[in-house]
Amino acid sequence: MQRLRAIQQQITPEQQHAEAIDPVASMKEERAKAAFQIRELTYLLDGGERNTRLKEQFMLEFERDPLFRMDDIFDISKDELRERTMEKFRSLVHHLSNESIDIFRKRMECVSMIDPGFWTRFGVHYGLFVGALQSNATSGQLGYWFQKGALSLGGMIGCFAMTELGHGSNVPGLETTATFDAAADQFVLHTPSLTATKWWIGGAAHSATHAAVFAQLIVQGKRYGTKCFVVPLRDPTTYHTLPGITIGDLGKKMGRDGIDNGYIQFTHVRIPRGYMLMKHTRVLRSGQVIEPKLQQLTYGALLQGRVAMVVDSGNVSKKALTIAIRYAAVRRQFSSAQSNIETKLLDYPIHQHRLMPLLAQTFAMLFTGTEMTSMYLEMMQRLENAKPGDKDLNQVLEMLKETHSTSAGLKAFCTWNCLNTIDQCRQACGGHGYSAYTGLANMYQDFAVQCTWEGDNTILALQLGRYLVSSYREARQDNKVLPPGIDYLNKQHRMDVHCTADADSEAWDDVSIIREGWHVVCAHAVHAATLEFEKGLESGLCMDDAYEQCSKSRLYAAKLHSYAYLFNRFADAVLKLQQGELREVLMQVCLLYGYYSIEENAGAFLLYEYFKPPQMQRVRRELDKLCELVRHQAIPLVDGFNLTDYMINSPLGRADGNVYVHYFSQVKQSNPQGPHPYFDRLIKPLISRSLIDQEESDDEQAGLESFSDDEDDDE
Amino acid sequence: MQRLRAIQQQITPEQQHAEAIDPVASMKEERAKAAFQIRELTYLLDGGERNTRLKEQFMLEFERDPLFRMDDIFDISKDELRERTMEKFRSLVHHLSNESIDIFRKRMECVSMIDPGFWTRFGVHYGLFVGALQSNATSGQLGYWFQKGALSLGGMIGCFAMTELGHGSNVPGLETTATFDAAADQFVLHTPSLTATKWWIGGAAHSATHAAVFAQLIVQGKRYGTKCFVVPLRDPTTYHTLPGITIGDLGKKMGRDGIDNGYIQFTHVRIPRGYMLMKHTRVLRSGQVIEPKLQQLTYGALLQGRVAMVVDSGNVSKKALTIAIRYAAVRRQFSSAQSNIETKLLDYPIHQHRLMPLLAQTFAMLFTGTEMTSMYLEMMQRLENAKPGDKDLNQVLEMLKETHSTSAGLKAFCTWNCLNTIDQCRQACGGHGYSAYTGLANMYQDFAVQCTWEGDNTILALQLGRYLVSSYREARQDNKVLPPGIDYLNKQHRMDVHCTADADSEAWDDVSIIREGWHVVCAHAVHAATLEFEKGLESGLCMDDAYEQCSKSRLYAAKLHSYAYLFNRFADAVLKLQQGELREVLMQVCLLYGYYSIEENAGAFLLYEYFKPPQMQRVRRELDKLCELVRHQAIPLVDGFNLTDYMINSPLGRADGNVYVHYFSQVKQSNPQGPHPYFDRLIKPLISRSLIDQEESDDEQAGLESFSDDEDDDE
Repeated sequence: MQRLRAIQQQITPEQQHAEAIDPVASMKEERAKAAFQIRELTYLLDGGERNTRLKEQFMLEFERDPLFRMDDIFDISKDELRERTMEKFRSLVHHLSNESIDIFRKRMECVSMIDPGFWTRFGVHYGLFVGALQSNATSGQLGYWFQKGALSLGGMIGCFAMTELGHGSNVPGLETTATFDAAADQFVLHTPSLTATKWWIGGAAHSATHAAVFAQLIVQGKRYGTKCFVVPLRDPTTYHTLPGITIGDLGKKMGRDGIDNGYIQFTHVRIPRGYMLMKHTRVLRSGQVIEPKLQQLTYGALLQGRVAMVVDSGNVSKKALTIAIRYAAVRRQFSSAQSNIETKLLDYPIHQHRLMPLLAQTFAMLFTGTEMTSMYLEMMQRLENAKPGDKDLNQVLEMLKETHSTSAGLKAFCTWNCLNTIDQCRQACGGHGYSAYTGLANMYQDFAVQCTWEGDNTILALQLGRYLVSSYREARQDNKVLPPGIDYLNKQHRMDVHCTADADSEAWDDVSIIREGWHVVCAHAVHAATLEFEKGLESGLCMDDAYEQCSKSRLYAAKLHSYAYLFNRFADAVLKLQQGELREVLMQVCLLYGYYSIEENAGAFLLYEYFKPPQMQRVRRELDKLCELVRHQAIPLVDGFNLTDYMINSPLGRADGNVYVHYFSQVKQSNPQGPHPYFDRLIKPLISRSLIDQEESDDEQAGLESFSDDEDDDE
Repeated sequence: MQRLRAIQQQITPEQQHAEAIDPVASMKEERAKAAFQIRELTYLLDGGERNTRLKEQFMLEFERDPLFRMDDIFDISKDELRERTMEKFRSLVHHLSNESIDIFRKRMECVSMIDPGFWTRFGVHYGLFVGALQSNATSGQLGYWFQKGALSLGGMIGCFAMTELGHGSNVPGLETTATFDAAADQFVLHTPSLTATKWWIGGAAHSATHAAVFAQLIVQGKRYGTKCFVVPLRDPTTYHTLPGITIGDLGKKMGRDGIDNGYIQFTHVRIPRGYMLMKHTRVLRSGQVIEPKLQQLTYGALLQGRVAMVVDSGNVSKKALTIAIRYAAVRRQFSSAQSNIETKLLDYPIHQHRLMPLLAQTFAMLFTGTEMTSMYLEMMQRLENAKPGDKDLNQVLEMLKETHSTSAGLKAFCTWNCLNTIDQCRQACGGHGYSAYTGLANMYQDFAVQCTWEGDNTILALQLGRYLVSSYREARQDNKVLPPGIDYLNKQHRMDVHCTADADSEAWDDVSIIREGWHVVCAHAVHAATLEFEKGLESGLCMDDAYEQCSKSRLYAAKLHSYAYLFNRFADAVLKLQQGELREVLMQVCLLYGYYSIEENAGAFLLYEYFKPPQMQRVRRELDKLCELVRHQAIPLVDGFNLTDYMINSPLGRADGNVYVHYFSQVKQSNPQGPHPYFDRLIKPLISRSLIDQEESDDEQAGLESFSDDEDDDE
C-alpha cells in the first residue's frame, strides 16, 4: 500500500502529460478501436490466407536480403543506385527459374512496392523484351532466342527500343528504318535523323546486349509499316558497342534512377534477315513480303500492363496512406480549450476529409484491380480455348474490347488518383513530408512516370471516350446489345431519371442511390459527347477530326465512367461479403467513396439534374458523417494492408507509432561525420572580412544600455 | 534560271517534309501570329519599361556569372550543391550593400526563379534572422547585433530556430525552455525532450553562427509564453559548435538541397540576459517581467511573406508554362487524315484545354501579386504615418485585417495552383517531362515546400474561412460596414440573384456575369459555413470547436473567395488598360480564366442556382471557344513573360524552338565517359554463367528453319 503510494507519488504532472501524448500509447489507443478482425481484411485483400502467407514470406526474405537494403537509398547517388540495382538481378533470376509464374508474379508485386526502379529494370528484360519476342516471333524464332539465353539471362540481356526522341505515342510514325538488302539477305537498320534516335530505352545505357527495335520495314523501296527486329548492341564478353551502334546515357530523371535509360542510334547496322520477328509480316529470301491476313490481336499484351498499373496504383496508395494515417494518429498539434493535451491530427474534421476519402478510394482501386485481374485471366483463357466461328468467341471479343477500353481509362484515372494520393499524404505530414527519409517524396518521383508510360493518361482516357461514343451510337443505330460494363448506355430512358429520395430520408444509407446516380450521369455525359461528335460530322469534319473536336467531352465521359466503374466494383465486392463486422465497416468505406466521388463531380450530378440542391447538401452531410465514422477504423484499416515496416520504409509510418524516435535515428544515421566540408574555403573568408571592426568585448548587457531596470521606456 | 531550277530540283519531298516539321520554323510561325505588341505586355507585367530593363540586366549578369551556372545542377550531388550555393553568398552581399532595397528585392525575385535553394539559404539570414531581430529587438539591441555584423555578414551568419520536431504550426506549444537564472543574470536554454529538438532549421547544418531561438520564457517558475532569444551556436573562427550545442544535418530533402537544414539541441546553454530580444516582453535584472500593454501587431511580417509567395507562384508558373507551351508549339504527334505532316500538340483541342486555362490562371496570379504588393506597401506606409486615435488608423487596421486574411487564402490557393501547374506542364511534355534536364521535375520538387512553410496551406485557408464567417456575423449582427474586399457580404440580397442572361445571348462576352456569379456563390458559401458554425454553438460547442466542426465549409468558402479574388484582380487590371490590341487579347485571357474558374467549381454555381443547366452548358462552350482563341496567342503571350533561355534552363523551353538539338546536346554533355562502371563485377558473371550452352554458330537463318520461302505455314 505504501509502496503503491510511493509509485503514485513518483508520477509528476509532467509525466502524466508525457504519457498522454506518448505516440506509442496513442497508436495502441487507435488499434484498440478495431471493430472487425484485421486479419480477415488482410485475407480478403490478398485473395485468401495462402496469398497472405506468401506475401509475408516474400516481405521477410527481402528484408533480410542485404542486396535489398532500402533504408539508405535516399542518400546514395544515381550511379551507386544503378549499380546496386544491377546486383539484385541474380537473386531474382534464381527465383524466376524455380517458382511458378503465378507465385513469381506475386513476388514481383512485392518488388514493385519495395524498389520500383529495380522492378522496371527487371521488367524491361522479362516484360518488354521477352514480351516482344513472344508477341512477334515465330515459334522457331522464339526457340532460337530462348536457346541463346533470352529466358535464362545467359549470354544476353534485352531491351525494348520503341520510342524515339521525336515520337512517343504514335508508333506508325516512328522514323527508324529497316531496309532489306536482298543481295546480302540482310536488313540495314538506320537512324535517319536526330528525332529518330531511340529514346528512353530502359536498360540501354548499361545493361542490354540486344534490343527489340521497332522500325519501318522497307523492301524494294516500298514501306510496309512498323515491324520488330532483334538487333545486337554489344559484345557480351566486353560490353563494347558493336559497329554502327551509338549508345548514350539519358542520365538523371525525376525518379526510378535505378533503371539505366539510354538512347540508341543506328548507322547502317546490318542484321541477318532472320532477326526480323516474323510471326505476323514475313519477308522471304526473295524479298517477297507476306502480310498477315488479319491484323494481330494486341489487346492482350496492352491489357496486362494496364491491369498491372491499376493494381500498382492501389498498392502504392496503401503504402502512402499507411504513412500519413499512422502519423496523423500520433501527431498532435494545438490543444483545445478544455485540455492542455494537444489534439491528434486524425481528430480534426478537416484532416479526416483530407485522408479518409483517399483511403476509401484506395479500397475501390484494390477491389477493382483484383476484379480486373481475374477478368483478364478468364478472358485470356476463354480466348485461347475458343475456335474461330465459336459463338462464345464473339462474346469474348466484345467483352475484351470493352475491358480493353475500360482498362485504358482506369489506367489513367487510377495512376492519377495514386499520384494525387501520394502528394496529399506528403502534404498531410506537414514539413516532415518534405524530408527524403519519410519516403513520400521518392514515392511521388518514382510513381509520376506511370501517368505517362504505356500510353499517356490523357490519350488513354480519350480512347475510352471514343469507345463509349461509338458503342452508344451502335446501340442507338443498330440496336446492338452492349456488353455488361456499359449496358447503362442501352437504357436511354435512364437519362430522364431524377433521384426521388427525400433529402432527409433513410434511403441514403444504401449504395443504390449512388449506383443509379452514376449510371444516369454517365449516360448523360456519353450522350453529350456523342451529340458533339455528330455535330462535327454534320459540319463536314472527317471522323478523326470530329473526335478531336469533342475531345473534352469525351475525356469527361471517360472520367465519369471510370469513377462509376471504381465505385461499382467496390460495392460489388462488399455486397458479396458475408454479413458481419468486416462487411459493416467496409460498407461505410464504400459509401464514403461513393459520396466523395459524387461531391468531386457535383457539377455533373446537378447539371444533369439527378440531384436537386437539397439532395446534394445531403450528400455533403453523409460524407461528413462517414469521414468521422471511418476515422475511428482508420488505423485498423491500414493495419489490414499488412505492410511491414521494411515495406513502408518511412519512420512516420512505423507500426509502433514511435515516429519521432525512428525519424531521429534515421536522420542521425545519414548524418555525415567529419570536419566542415567548406568552412576554410568559403565561409571563413566571407565572415572574417570585417571581424576587425568587432573586436569590442562581448558585454553581457549587450545592447541593453538604452534602458535600465527602473526605467520603463514604453510610450 | 537554270540555277534556280537546279536548286528547286534539289528539294526532295523528304526535304519538303523536313522543312514542314522543322521546329524552328514552327516556332517562327507561332510568333508571327502575335496580335499585340509583345514588349507592351512585358512592360505591363513588370510595372514599366524601367523595371523590364532592370530585370534584363539582372538576367544577363547572372547568366554570365560562373557561380550562377545552372545547366549542370541536375547532375551534382547534394553536397556539391550545398557548397556551390554557399559560393554565391559573397556576390549577393556585395549587391545588398550597394543597391537600394527596392532594386535588391527585384534582384532577389530573379534569384528565386533561377535558384530557389540559394534564395532560401540567403533568405534565412536576411529575411528570417534579421527579420526576427527587427521585429523583436529593442533599437539598442538591434544596433548591437548590426554592429556585430548581422547586416554585413561580417563575423556572423544567423538562422531562425522556431519549429521543433514535434511542433510546427502551433508556436505557443513549443517545448524549448529559456529559464532565467537571476543569480547569474543569464538565461538557460534547454531542449527538454526529443520532440523539442529544433527541426528544419535552414542554415543550421553548415552556415549559422547564431540562431534566433523561440523558447518558453520561464522566470521564477512561471511561464510567460514563447519569446525570441539570440543564441550563439558556433565559434566563428573554427565553426566548432559551442558547449551544450548539438547540431545535426537533416540531409536529403524533396528539393532545395542547396539549403542546409539542420536540427539543434540545447543542453543547459547559458546566454546573457541581454540576448533575449526585448522589444515586447522584458525581463529586468531583478527578474521582474514586464509584459507589453498591447499584443504586438505581427500582421506586417506575415503579410510580406504571403504576398511574396503569391508573386512567386505567378513567376514560377510563367517558367513552367513557357516550357510546356513552347514545346507544344513544335512537338508534333499523329497526322490527320488529310496530311502526312504530324499535328502540333498545340493544335489539339485537348492540349489547349490542358494548358490555356493554366496560362490564364498565371496572369490572374501575376496581376493579383502586383496589386497585393502595392496594397501592402501603401498600408504599411499609412500605418507608419498614422497616430493612435486617428480616424484613418481604424480604417487601415480593418483593411489590414482583411488583407491579412485574404493573403492567407491566396498564399494557399496560389501555391497549390502553381504546384499543379508545374505538374500539368510536366505531364504535357510527355516522357520528356520525366527527364531531369527538362527542368520541370526539379521545379516541382523545389516548389512543393511552399504549400507547407510559412503556414500549412490548409490551416491558412481555414484562417481566411474563419475571418469570412466572423465578418459576416459582425455585418449581420452589428451592421458593421465591411472593408471593400468582402463587401459582397454586406449585400445579403445578393444571395437571391440568379443569372438572367439567356444561354444564347451576347452577354457572355463580358466580365459582369462572372463577377456577379462569384459574388453570389461566395456569399452563399460564407452563409452556409456560418449557419453550420452557429449550429455548433447552439449545440453547446465552444467557439473553437464550433469552428473545427464547420472546417470543411470554411475551407470551401475560403476557396471560392480566393478564386473570386483572383478573377476580380485580373479583370480590374484589364479594364484599366487603354483600348487596343493588348487589352483585347488580355480580355480574352481574362474571360477564359473566369469561365475556367466557374467550370472548376460548377457544383457551387449550380448548387446555389446562380446558373441553370443550359447556362452552365454555355460556360463550357465559351471556354472551348476561348481556349481555341487564346491558343493562337499562346507563344506571343509566353514571349511576353520575357524570360531568357538561361532563366528557363530547359531545352524544351528554348526560345528558338530548336528543342531536340538542345535537349540532345544537354544529355550528351551530362553523359559520363569512361569504361562501363560495373560490367566486370556484376554483369559478366551473371550473363556468362551458361555461355557454354550457346557456342553454336550464329546462323544467319537463325530460328527460321521451320519455314522456307516457298512454304506458307499460315492456318
